[in-house]
Amino acid sequence: MDLQGINIIGFNTSSEGTVALQAVNPVSGETLGPLFYNATLGELASATDLAEEAFTVYRKKSGQEKADFLKQIASEIEALGDDLIERYTAETGLPAGRAQGERGRTCGQLRLFASLLEEGSWVNAKIDTAMPDRQPLPRVDLRSMERPLGPVAVFGASNFPLAFSVAGGDTASALAAGCPVIFKAHPAHLGTSELVGRAIQKAAHVTGMPDGVFSMLHGDPELSQALVKDPIIKAVGFTGSYKVGKLLFDIAAQREEPIPVYSEMGSTNPVFVLPKTLKEKGDAIAENYLNSVTLGVGQFCTNPGIMLIQKDDKFMETLEVKAKEAVGGNMLTPGIKNAYLGGVENAKKYTKVIAIGKKAEGLTGVEPTILHADYQTFKDNPHLDEEVFGPTSLVVEGNSKEEYLEIAKNLSGHLTATVHGSEEELVEYAELLEILEQKVGRLIVNGFPTGVEVCHAMVHGGPYPATTDSRSTSVGTGAITRFTRPVCFQSLPDVLLPDELKEANPLGIWRMVDGDRKK
Amino acid sequence: MDLQGINIIGFNTSSEGTVALQAVNPVSGETLGPLFYNATLGELASATDLAEEAFTVYRKKSGQEKADFLKQIASEIEALGDDLIERYTAETGLPAGRAQGERGRTCGQLRLFASLLEEGSWVNAKIDTAMPDRQPLPRVDLRSMERPLGPVAVFGASNFPLAFSVAGGDTASALAAGCPVIFKAHPAHLGTSELVGRAIQKAAHVTGMPDGVFSMLHGDPELSQALVKDPIIKAVGFTGSYKVGKLLFDIAAQREEPIPVYSEMGSTNPVFVLPKTLKEKGDAIAENYLNSVTLGVGQFCTNPGIMLIQKDDKFMETLEVKAKEAVGGNMLTPGIKNAYLGGVENAKKYTKVIAIGKKAEGLTGVEPTILHADYQTFKDNPHLDEEVFGPTSLVVEGNSKEEYLEIAKNLSGHLTATVHGSEEELVEYAELLEILEQKVGRLIVNGFPTGVEVCHAMVHGGPYPATTDSRSTSVGTGAITRFTRPVCFQSLPDVLLPDELKEANPLGIWRMVDGDRKK
Repeated sequence: MDLQGINIIGFNTSSEGTVALQAVNPVSGETLGPLFYNATLGELASATDLAEEAFTVYRKKSGQEKADFLKQIASEIEALGDDLIERYTAETGLPAGRAQGERGRTCGQLRLFASLLEEGSWVNAKIDTAMPDRQPLPRVDLRSMERPLGPVAVFGASNFPLAFSVAGGDTASALAAGCPVIFKAHPAHLGTSELVGRAIQKAAHVTGMPDGVFSMLHGDPELSQALVKDPIIKAVGFTGSYKVGKLLFDIAAQREEPIPVYSEMGSTNPVFVLPKTLKEKGDAIAENYLNSVTLGVGQFCTNPGIMLIQKDDKFMETLEVKAKEAVGGNMLTPGIKNAYLGGVENAKKYTKVIAIGKKAEGLTGVEPTILHADYQTFKDNPHLDEEVFGPTSLVVEGNSKEEYLEIAKNLSGHLTATVHGSEEELVEYAELLEILEQKVGRLIVNGFPTGVEVCHAMVHGGPYPATTDSRSTSVGTGAITRFTRPVCFQSLPDVLLPDELKEANPLGIWRMVDGDRKK
Repeated sequence: MDLQGINIIGFNTSSEGTVALQAVNPVSGETLGPLFYNATLGELASATDLAEEAFTVYRKKSGQEKADFLKQIASEIEALGDDLIERYTAETGLPAGRAQGERGRTCGQLRLFASLLEEGSWVNAKIDTAMPDRQPLPRVDLRSMERPLGPVAVFGASNFPLAFSVAGGDTASALAAGCPVIFKAHPAHLGTSELVGRAIQKAAHVTGMPDGVFSMLHGDPELSQALVKDPIIKAVGFTGSYKVGKLLFDIAAQREEPIPVYSEMGSTNPVFVLPKTLKEKGDAIAENYLNSVTLGVGQFCTNPGIMLIQKDDKFMETLEVKAKEAVGGNMLTPGIKNAYLGGVENAKKYTKVIAIGKKAEGLTGVEPTILHADYQTFKDNPHLDEEVFGPTSLVVEGNSKEEYLEIAKNLSGHLTATVHGSEEELVEYAELLEILEQKVGRLIVNGFPTGVEVCHAMVHGGPYPATTDSRSTSVGTGAITRFTRPVCFQSLPDVLLPDELKEANPLGIWRMVDGDRKK
């Protein structure tokens, strides 16, 4: 495997920084070569200058050209073969199966955006034709469509080294929108980032994309902040902690030119189980709940951090038995492990332990921890609503529908909320569903929140503090319009209009013409 | 005309404030009865509490129910008859024809949103059906659509007492989206606001809308800030000055829960005339330019504040002759008049006067002022790019295409940019159009920016500092999604889904089903 510690700036690589970073196997503690170097502010300036220049060309690439680029990225990632899987598992402690699955998801995601571009109707073309004879005033010809914002800064997440990282959803949607990307690599998977970054670089070269359409930098918080402050950057995509996501939002809002920041900051994804269903299906619910809590060692933004039930001793006994058998794993980094242990210790001060599962061997090995609180305790300690990143969850036992409604009303914004119930019981609790819908981006019935499908209808987002912008999604094709804005063309000669708006509709896309949807 | 100075809070009216406001006829200086009273913070709390309660009901109103409400508002405004027109003209100094035209626009706008709701496809319904047999994992049923954000604060503009005020585009789009509105009335047209506010109140009552779906308050800057800070408010619509629009944006970004702010803050709307076209059509261009500059006494966000030409002595002579004949008018308030005169005086320090037109009689009467600067002067004084609100414009004379491109590249965000040229010349200047497209919400060829059509394709918006959020429009049906966010429903029983997402498509709307657009 050819890996050097470099910053990828357009088609070139450079490493002028002197602060070295090194990857560590979180299971064995073994350091992994080579050294990586934090980018200098000079390297950042090279990347932003190139991105600005690239935008003048890339913004005009056709849907097909951008689609070819995205598909080529997927092919180049696949061409990395087992080198990528080996590096991924070594750096993260996650199993090869997970790495392969996530690679499939990442490449599938790139190809889904490619198909969206090839189909072409996503630009939301609207045409209101001229009415020269209208009284009292004639109407001019007006045509509008979505156009790219400009260079985008993307910050990868620690917990999805492929799907929410270098070539993940934020990068894919920004490139699909027509925006160059400057990617700040996550230090938790340096080598994986490097391999994927070079795959993108290669794909850009192969498909004739402009130099600077993609750059990747390693860096510290100072570099991250400088990237968001750079006037060339027109939007930010981020997945990670509340603390950093909110900080980037604040920095962007205080720029001379404020820019949109899409920080996806996770949540506790409350799961409500309705009482009859809990009695009837308690075994299966306990099983699936624990699977969801421990999946990926609990390192998912959609991890179900709270489950709400109405008092049910039999279920609690079942859960205790099963939770003791639940198996932990190695967390992504020693820092994440320590934060998890600290979070659990803190939560224990206010809650009872139902069961501690089996601890995994290895440096960052942890055990699942299932906690319990009664309704009053939960109500008196609002911070119990906050996310503890890892394989832990809090079961809150209440006594009535009224308490469910009260809990729901007091929830802050979350990515998801879930309700388990028969159709009859769900109808009885329709008010609960209505309240929850106002708190989340995705409302789930009889499932668990982990497993975020990449498709058209997905909304991976939600009201603050789950994200800094609830009007969008960071997963699925809807993510593309985070990086665009509508532009209206008035009375332009056909030859100067983008193809999407030309009279003859040469791309054959769906458009709204004088209020009617037409192809 | 039955007019009292009250704050309209839900279906009730109250006026607990002690600070009195009184309308003034800007032409005669005559005060107009009655007294109006700034709302107290207690009245604000009543309005937000009612809005919160109203939202639980109003968010579930069908498209048809909301459409009926909007159409009833239009009817109630029309039913005000000449009382409204008389009050409008007395308060603003604008002629009756303008008042009637603006009333038509306002009612047409409400009915356009009603038709959008009746058609129903605006919710962007997307359905990805379940694939229980998919390998390696089954796909669940996922359905998403736009849903309302919650209560919205709207601030009206001084310069459109109807179309951008109480029942203007922001209110219409927020109500259409399913959001209750708390409207802060503009002090420049107190009585007009009162009449329209009561028309909305009456329409809400007639169509069975919940109490609190609309409230209107008179108030000072402190009240405005308290409104934006109120945690019940989930978005803000504003049209007015940069200073206030940016302040509201900053306040909203610093809230515990940041919320979107759509401030439309105006711009100078540069007009580029290509040299051959200027030679051929100089007379007509001068005429139409002056009409656009002086329309509504220059009190439009789309007023063409800068015209760029390449050196042409003949045109300058023509323009001078015509500009001397241009007629001013009375501005909306003495404060606006003073700001206009001050802005012109300041601009004169750096520019030459081409011509001063005819001053209008009356307290706030002003004359049009057309100024001139050469390219170097314009370049050396970047503040000349800033808006002077009123009937003034600056002609910048350059020497080459390169200078045009340089000017365009250095522009900040504007609502519009315009280019005059023959098709041949426009093609020659394609790069200019490309640069301008990146600076504006609407790119115009061979027209003038005043006259903002209310339709589907309109974009009345643009990059900062023209607005605080370029990803939207404040005119046209696209404005509705400023006040919504997508919500995804996973595996919900059909009976619990919104009608828009039910399997049988009972509303017959356009939806994206497994990636295909279907009805």
